Amino acid sequence: MTYFREIVLSLWVLSQTTAAYSRALTPLQNAAKAFILPLKASEPSDNPASRAKIELGKQLFFDPRLSKDGTVSCNSCHNVMASGSDNRAVSVGINGQRGGRSAPTVFNAAFLSVQFWDGRAATLEDQAKGPLVNPIEMGMPSHDAVVARLREIDGYSDQFQKVFGGKDPVTIDNLAKAVAVYERTLITPNSAFDRWARGDGGALSASAQRGFSKMNEIGCTSCHSGGGFSGPALPTGTGFYQKFPTFAENDYVKKYDFLGDEGRKNVTKNEADAHMFRVPTLRNVAMTAPYFHNGSVGSLQEAIRVMAKTQLNKNLTTDEVNDIYNLLVSLTGTIPEQTMPKLSQTLGTTVTPQ
Amino acid sequence: MTYFREIVLSLWVLSQTTAAYSRALTPLQNAAKAFILPLKASEPSDNPASRAKIELGKQLFFDPRLSKDGTVSCNSCHNVMASGSDNRAVSVGINGQRGGRSAPTVFNAAFLSVQFWDGRAATLEDQAKGPLVNPIEMGMPSHDAVVARLREIDGYSDQFQKVFGGKDPVTIDNLAKAVAVYERTLITPNSAFDRWARGDGGALSASAQRGFSKMNEIGCTSCHSGGGFSGPALPTGTGFYQKFPTFAENDYVKKYDFLGDEGRKNVTKNEADAHMFRVPTLRNVAMTAPYFHNGSVGSLQEAIRVMAKTQLNKNLTTDEVNDIYNLLVSLTGTIPEQTMPKLSQTLGTTVTPQ
Repeated sequence: MTYFREIVLSLWVLSQTTAAYSRALTPLQNAAKAFILPLKASEPSDNPASRAKIELGKQLFFDPRLSKDGTVSCNSCHNVMASGSDNRAVSVGINGQRGGRSAPTVFNAAFLSVQFWDGRAATLEDQAKGPLVNPIEMGMPSHDAVVARLREIDGYSDQFQKVFGGKDPVTIDNLAKAVAVYERTLITPNSAFDRWARGDGGALSASAQRGFSKMNEIGCTSCHSGGGFSGPALPTGTGFYQKFPTFAENDYVKKYDFLGDEGRKNVTKNEADAHMFRVPTLRNVAMTAPYFHNGSVGSLQEAIRVMAKTQLNKNLTTDEVNDIYNLLVSLTGTIPEQTMPKLSQTLGTTVTPQ
Repeated sequence: MTYFREIVLSLWVLSQTTAAYSRALTPLQNAAKAFILPLKASEPSDNPASRAKIELGKQLFFDPRLSKDGTVSCNSCHNVMASGSDNRAVSVGINGQRGGRSAPTVFNAAFLSVQFWDGRAATLEDQAKGPLVNPIEMGMPSHDAVVARLREIDGYSDQFQKVFGGKDPVTIDNLAKAVAVYERTLITPNSAFDRWARGDGGALSASAQRGFSKMNEIGCTSCHSGGGFSGPALPTGTGFYQKFPTFAENDYVKKYDFLGDEGRKNVTKNEADAHMFRVPTLRNVAMTAPYFHNGSVGSLQEAIRVMAKTQLNKNLTTDEVNDIYNLLVSLTGTIPEQTMPKLSQTLGTTVTPQ
């Protein structure tokens, strides 16, 4: 039945693609073609996907036992039943601790060339290892402790063996590979924007089309370009950064404390990287409030005004904000249909300290 | 396709039932027939299930926005991808706060005639309303605040309207009804014990069969009777309670602080209810460590020794403990296959306070 669904999905995708080329496109639609979300992310040669690996990765993604006290999973902050994020300014880790930056959505993260707001991980595989041992996130004391925990849970060893083989397959690198392979399935196709850019002229309102024009005109899409509206496709590990705020002499910067975080400089210790942040995706941005690295802005309309001012030194009219808002709403894609994972259990005991 | 699965499931259930009656049962199997888990829970006449109501209930069950800060859902403590519980001594609510008692599994809770350890809710519907406004659990200030939150989330109003109709369908009672209807689907059939009791003589090891005999012999099944191993089928709201500990003069009681919680007396203020607790289900007990109302006992073997001593004043041999352990492991059923819910979103803003 799962195969059946995939066949139907493929036929549907094909029909959409065919439809796109059977209609005359407006100039704006032609310009939009460069922004169509790919349907599949490329995978690193040393971590090809398989059905079993995706399933294992999904279990790990949802398993709160990977946190010290058994309360926080990847999904706690990157909720794939909702926005791929937690819709909070900053996330809450173990013991009620607050994080330092707002959790980015995991949806379409597979298309980003670096991970985290400051690009400190080159790949999804690298990223997956971070929160596990961050004391204010999942709080495990070490990657060895994570591996020891996994080995305590009946069922995982067998699955790692089947997926990865080898003498000692339960490793932190294999955990990260499985999670990354699962995350590469978290793509949200079929947004109104994509349907329009493929040729369905009725899929996008006139206001949203004006919004797209305006974004091109004033320069939003200089950075928010490509299928993810997050910059050009760069080699993995090569980040696409921008200074935020670029224009710091305005009320927004103080009001929302935009200078309180030096961004990539914290990673490189290089003054040139002060306040540099990875350009975030605009895909599904209407679902991922609140906004910015510190989650300080609650509404998308305000985020649009802020960006125009801090990055382009522009004051937008209410109509322009509404048009761009409608374009951004049109980037809301279809969240993948998923079955729930079943987490294997060690019988008769608990693996999380009490 | 969902219908197809249900037809296959029904045929399978029928085949199991038919198989049960086509074989000669041993006397022990005959005794076990009274313990077979029903495949369906009865529903209150004012809350019949429907596909749309179950789907709505599942969304609500998984929605962390029903907690004050958007971090805790029903599923946080009653994880239906795992044991239906959180495998913690006590659960963690908002702001890292610890609960007072161990979260019971939601699996098969539909068969219990009262809910909570102290039976303070008569129905699943009543139970569902409690944690929402418990300050150390989901922490909403009031049921009105829950309803206001629901109304802020685009999509819920339409669903409540379709499911419940009426002028003002988004109410706390309708929320509870939807959650309860979903919970009535959380039944775990097909345990080794059930297959054996239905006639598959090879489904249960000799040790587990001895364990079942021993439990009948020494009196465990006086209380842990019926399909849930949780007592007789009583009218909804009529609890089946037992004093715990019944025999308090032993080392376990002090070691595990069993007298630190007066149980049902906290609800009724009646001295006769001191240390009375609802008899918990033994279904899936091997998955739900740690044990007892305070989660103080980490292993099932120890829990068996404790129960024999505190409730029956018996000291079991190692072999007897192992036999009963194997019987309890055989009560591990099949967790339902489920699709993930998709939580509706209010675009461009967040509904949880930051």
